[in-house]
Amino acid sequence: MAAYVQDSIMLLGDSITQGGYENNGFAAKLAHVYNRKMDVINRGFSGYNTEWALPIFEQCFATQHEQQHLPKVRLLIIWFGANDSCLPTREQHVPLPQYKANLRKMIWMVRSPESPRYSPDTRVILINSPPLNAEQWAARQAGQVPPRPMERDSGVTRTYAEAAVEVGAQEGVAVVDAWSALYDAAGREEKALRKFLTDGLHLNEAGYAIVFDELVKTIKEKHPEYHYDNLQFVFVP
Amino acid sequence: MAAYVQDSIMLLGDSITQGGYENNGFAAKLAHVYNRKMDVINRGFSGYNTEWALPIFEQCFATQHEQQHLPKVRLLIIWFGANDSCLPTREQHVPLPQYKANLRKMIWMVRSPESPRYSPDTRVILINSPPLNAEQWAARQAGQVPPRPMERDSGVTRTYAEAAVEVGAQEGVAVVDAWSALYDAAGREEKALRKFLTDGLHLNEAGYAIVFDELVKTIKEKHPEYHYDNLQFVFVP
Repeated sequence: MAAYVQDSIMLLGDSITQGGYENNGFAAKLAHVYNRKMDVINRGFSGYNTEWALPIFEQCFATQHEQQHLPKVRLLIIWFGANDSCLPTREQHVPLPQYKANLRKMIWMVRSPESPRYSPDTRVILINSPPLNAEQWAARQAGQVPPRPMERDSGVTRTYAEAAVEVGAQEGVAVVDAWSALYDAAGREEKALRKFLTDGLHLNEAGYAIVFDELVKTIKEKHPEYHYDNLQFVFVP
Repeated sequence: MAAYVQDSIMLLGDSITQGGYENNGFAAKLAHVYNRKMDVINRGFSGYNTEWALPIFEQCFATQHEQQHLPKVRLLIIWFGANDSCLPTREQHVPLPQYKANLRKMIWMVRSPESPRYSPDTRVILINSPPLNAEQWAARQAGQVPPRPMERDSGVTRTYAEAAVEVGAQEGVAVVDAWSALYDAAGREEKALRKFLTDGLHLNEAGYAIVFDELVKTIKEKHPEYHYDNLQFVFVP
């Protein structure tokens, strides 16, 4: 059994988080720069939206009573939106007001003294959905056996991404605007997003690298005490 | 604080383990294939030999009393030898009999009912030192400012690698013979190891890939119950 010697960073999200250890994804990069400082715990759940993730998150985050024995989560990175923003024809769809309410509930769970999972040492950072390359995703859907209908829309995805930024501003929580960072990197041209997306929705190595850089910048600006340069090795070099 | 919802794999070793999340290293690959099944905890300590690692390992591995609240370590991967096998001119050197005794102590710590850290659910796997490319490492040492003396020898490294295989056989612990796997992949020609080593000592992506494949094969053969294909997702897909 692993003794509690390092604090941790928890990544909570959908398939984009779950895939974070593959191909130099953002989880692997975080684990590397936080080596011997904090452990990275990946709680990415492919296919999940905020509605389905809420009860899972309750199980993943320790209650106050359990917390005394367990590694502290210093940074909680919440990254949802890619599935919530599906069109209503698909069961993963979560209406926009509900998506925002669910993000607020997740933040409340760790920040409110009234919550059974209140954790005053945890800093929350939201990441919003990457932009969709609709043409690329439609081709991917058409290529499935049997072919699947197109159930996403670039404009809708953008609306959800903006909503996450809004929630962050209202709640005083830092937001990594992955949507804008990737869209800007693609010269604000949807088709050029192909450079950063494997299938129009999920990130490739170059896409993860952009989000990783933005995340590290956000940590440095908003929570510098938890930036890896400001943490000592737990055991001497 | 992260609740205990997943068991874990602990990686204990030196810089070769510490670097395991970089460039698609073996830690990142393990974390990916064990996604939603087991967490990978990297306890790699650059520069450490078995002698210095022993007291650290005691702190990293929970006592029986602490174990009830903490994630179980199902697989403990112990990878030392690269620093122990330095020549006696360097302070990292550990004499061969002591190296073997230290590996035995680490195994004893988790396997003996008399140990305070006894953990009957933990399966131990040893990995031995990769082969040295002496020419490449000597050039690296000469290139340091100020230049450093050459303090390693390919034949000595091989002796330590064979010793780890011996300890495994005597203790009934599975061994990943990284030395042989890499040497074979290089056509049993030391200079050709350049394909797998960044500096003559540490592994690059191709080198890690070979060790990862051997490790997965070992898990499948010796501890199939902990192979990722035989584990369920903790939370439903």
